[in-house]
This record gives sequence, C-alpha cells and structure tokens, in this order.
Amino acid sequence: MEKALLNVEGMSCGHCVKAVEGSVGKLDGVERVLVDLKEKTVAVEYKNDSVTLDKIKETIEDQGYDIV
Amino acid sequence: MEKALLNVEGMSCGHCVKAVEGSVGKLDGVERVLVDLKEKTVAVEYKNDSVTLDKIKETIEDQGYDIV
Repeated sequence: MEKALLNVEGMSCGHCVKAVEGSVGKLDGVERVLVDLKEKTVAVEYKNDSVTLDKIKETIEDQGYDIV
Repeated sequence: MEKALLNVEGMSCGHCVKAVEGSVGKLDGVERVLVDLKEKTVAVEYKNDSVTLDKIKETIEDQGYDIV
C-alpha cells in the first residue's frame, strides 16, 4: 500500500469534497481518500499495482482542480 | 413578473452555482435565476402568483447558504 499527500488548489466547499473524494474513491486500487479543505490537501492510500499516482492526479484535475 | 436580487453568503465554486441555480430554477413560477459568485448574489425573476420570495430564500438556505 502506498500513501500520498497532494496539495490541491481550488477546493472550496462541501461539493468540492464530494467531487474529489467521489471520483478518486471510485478508482480501482484506491483504498482511502480524504480531503482537507482547510489544509488544501488530498490524502490517498492506494495499491500501486492497480493504480498510479499520475492517474489519481489526473482524476483530480479532471474535476477542475490544480495539483500544486 | 417580479425581480429580486439576494445577497447570499457561502457560495464558493461552480458546484455551488449548480446547487443554487438548479434548486431555485426547479421551483414553479421561477422564470430565471442567475448566481454571481464574485458579487455573492442570486438574481431571480419569478411570478408572485406562483411562488413567494420567502420560498425562494428557503430553497437557497436548504442548500446550505445564508441570505444576508
């Protein structure tokens, strides 16, 4: 199991939390995902034989947010 | 046709725009609804024989925003 903490710009409300946690959480291989609005972070735990960190970042960007 | 411009706190992103425009727009008697994120306003045009301004305000509050 891998862990990553991403800094993400643009998440501002509960809808944003749902959009990010919902989309990332649906990826095969993602075990846990947790958004912290205040810290502007997304914490993920994933199996790196099923999903790449690049794929996770791309999924967040597809929801309209920027990885910094 | 009546027009109103409401000052609304807490709308911060595109999801908030959808939540407010979607819910208010579905009310019988509401002809137009337009959120301005920057100005923190919701502009509505409605038929006051079909819907009240109180009902519109209540609908916005039910989405989690405060009328100021």
